[in-house]
Amino acid sequence: MKAKGFLIVLSGPSGAGKNTLINHVLPRIPNLKYSVSATTRAPRPGEVNGVDYFFVSDAEFDRMIANNQFLEWAVFVGNRYGTPRSFVEEQIQQGYTVIMDVDIQGALQIRKQMPEAVLVFLLPPTLDELRKRLNKRGQDALEAIAKRLEHSAKELEYIVDYDYYIINDDLDKAAERLVTIINAEQCRVARADLRAIQQLWQRRQD
Amino acid sequence: MKAKGFLIVLSGPSGAGKNTLINHVLPRIPNLKYSVSATTRAPRPGEVNGVDYFFVSDAEFDRMIANNQFLEWAVFVGNRYGTPRSFVEEQIQQGYTVIMDVDIQGALQIRKQMPEAVLVFLLPPTLDELRKRLNKRGQDALEAIAKRLEHSAKELEYIVDYDYYIINDDLDKAAERLVTIINAEQCRVARADLRAIQQLWQRRQD
Repeated sequence: MKAKGFLIVLSGPSGAGKNTLINHVLPRIPNLKYSVSATTRAPRPGEVNGVDYFFVSDAEFDRMIANNQFLEWAVFVGNRYGTPRSFVEEQIQQGYTVIMDVDIQGALQIRKQMPEAVLVFLLPPTLDELRKRLNKRGQDALEAIAKRLEHSAKELEYIVDYDYYIINDDLDKAAERLVTIINAEQCRVARADLRAIQQLWQRRQD
Repeated sequence: MKAKGFLIVLSGPSGAGKNTLINHVLPRIPNLKYSVSATTRAPRPGEVNGVDYFFVSDAEFDRMIANNQFLEWAVFVGNRYGTPRSFVEEQIQQGYTVIMDVDIQGALQIRKQMPEAVLVFLLPPTLDELRKRLNKRGQDALEAIAKRLEHSAKELEYIVDYDYYIINDDLDKAAERLVTIINAEQCRVARADLRAIQQLWQRRQD
């Protein structure tokens, strides 16, 4: 019996630990696949087209937007990144669960484009903890971090648009919760192959 | 942080193994409680009021129906049994997850009375397997079993009104799935204590 797959979106403020969590969970669920994004950024040495990203030109990205081929897209540091709808839909049709991480604005775009997607809000235990993590990462100046924290505090309001939440106080526990959510969602009647179930139940006249 | 509990309803055809599965799962989830039913049947030796059942008179049962105090009720072998709304709601308020087993008609009543309840359809792998189990149980005559199977095959249609399904081909695997569903449902934003989360996120001015 082949149930339909689904898209699971891990989202939350920058520094919540989305990427680390996904890498922790991917090896633990056999039919889980990471969503491959499209980008206008040039490939870095070693990056493979179709594996790390779909590398596309600016014109191609424009076309994809015009044809509604993205579940969400955004600009980061001058380059555009987007989630191609076709890739996700093909994997789902084949029974895979597709996982991706995206910021909160991106998750809200996906909610509109694909209402049946499963949205998980990942949040660090406190805003202080988030500040510590962003400081430790050392990517941003103190002022930028302060701005980001303020932004994150505001964005917490959008949690009500999500299906699940995970407080990332401990990586192993958070991974356990995400695995649990994915496994439970695989038991949804809405995605079951009801015809196959009904066929099993055809009463043999013996 | 204290999230709200919820009601999880395990339902399915007679012989699917609802009771065995619940007994297997109860010790594995700390805040899981079995729902205590009200009944007009006389207590059997050793049965304790408020633990095994709430034993009530016919007149009291009538009053409870009139006052909409049941999530569902039904007649079995001349006695009435019902799920008291107040017991379930009190446990949920205290943060417990309440589990119960009920036939399909009862589950559909609950869906109307408490739309946020989580409905799980338990089904044996095939109708032949169900026939074997009912034969083995030896409670019913062959003719009664044939009737019951026909009824079960029809009732399978109601699976679309459920949230989750579990195929009970192996008790341990089915228990694992039910535990997973309950744990995942405990991560629902809809039941989170959002005020507590927001308070954790109040930025300390230090």
